[in-house]
Amino acid sequence: MNKTKKIPVLERVAKINEQIADENRALLRANNLICINIMGSPGGGKTTLIENTIIRLQGEKKIAVIEGDLATTIDAERIMALGVDVLQINTGGMCHLDAPLIRNALKKMDLSSIDILFIENVGNLVCPSSHDLGEDYRVIIASVPEGPHKPKKYPVIYKEADVVVITKADLLEYFPDFTEKILFNHAKEIQPEILTFSVALKRNESMDEWINWVKSVKPKIRE
Amino acid sequence: MNKTKKIPVLERVAKINEQIADENRALLRANNLICINIMGSPGGGKTTLIENTIIRLQGEKKIAVIEGDLATTIDAERIMALGVDVLQINTGGMCHLDAPLIRNALKKMDLSSIDILFIENVGNLVCPSSHDLGEDYRVIIASVPEGPHKPKKYPVIYKEADVVVITKADLLEYFPDFTEKILFNHAKEIQPEILTFSVALKRNESMDEWINWVKSVKPKIRE
Repeated sequence: MNKTKKIPVLERVAKINEQIADENRALLRANNLICINIMGSPGGGKTTLIENTIIRLQGEKKIAVIEGDLATTIDAERIMALGVDVLQINTGGMCHLDAPLIRNALKKMDLSSIDILFIENVGNLVCPSSHDLGEDYRVIIASVPEGPHKPKKYPVIYKEADVVVITKADLLEYFPDFTEKILFNHAKEIQPEILTFSVALKRNESMDEWINWVKSVKPKIRE
Repeated sequence: MNKTKKIPVLERVAKINEQIADENRALLRANNLICINIMGSPGGGKTTLIENTIIRLQGEKKIAVIEGDLATTIDAERIMALGVDVLQINTGGMCHLDAPLIRNALKKMDLSSIDILFIENVGNLVCPSSHDLGEDYRVIIASVPEGPHKPKKYPVIYKEADVVVITKADLLEYFPDFTEKILFNHAKEIQPEILTFSVALKRNESMDEWINWVKSVKPKIRE
């Protein structure tokens, strides 16, 4: 028996995802659009942030959205109501999106007409982190009611993130243990280059810095 | 080639987990203790519910806790501060607890001295649902800021649940789209037998129904 031989199944699956992610990236680049993968816990405010971003950039940027969900079209209906193109991926119980699912979605979209493509991942702070979709940027939503320790408790997803957005900052006064500084510091300990924003959408304020970032993003240069 | 032959890998892993879960269950039964698996999104209030339950049942029930986390001991330290036995499982990035991890934990605990064992699962509304740990009851935490649609959006975990506890009900006035009735109705559409509780721990009230249930639970009779 050859002891150096290993069963290659898991590694091969990961490699296939990587390869298709690179193909997705090349397709997005060829169509000159920026792709932003929004990740976070269930109910953290991913859809609300995308909705408000669409509203603020109406007339300036052509936005489209891929919605990842286990089973429903609840989020996709909210986005569609704003008049933008939305494509729903129901994962049928799977805990994350992967590159092949995104490839299938991209085939059904008119990519040449889009400036910014948001992908809303399945609500989950663990599994989406290990699946490159071909996106330019990874944004993590950290809502105030979740508490300030999420970067420490879910370090893997923060390590691969480009941006963290604190949401539901309207509620800061009800969570005295939560300050933006604590969460941002924890996030920077894990990923020193991470960009940090905070939004309070119920008060409809403090979106400016996030919006300026979205408006100005260029394709990510990868080493 | 025999076409009826299948590669049995995935099925066998699931079967091993089931088998060890049954062994865990037998061990818990032999020691006359009830085991409650607490599941929910990151930051939903799992640890806070366990903390407050320990405080309310001090002197009445001997409680112990197994804490599941990706990387830290933050939650375990909170529980230990209350003077109860706590065992930390760091999953090293894995998105759920499984029966073998619990078996290893049970070996390190003095089971004969415990009335109720809480297991706090990894914060995740997807993956923990498909792993029987040997617990008697599965409790899902649904915090108000997450919104009322979680049972519809994460049906798999609700289908296997015995109890849903709405947490952070203090915040109901800030979420006009959330009523307890909407969430409970959605949960009952998926699992008609599910028990429903609601707690507002910052106001330190409305714990009575939940506490009465915890005090009165008997080993679950399985068909």
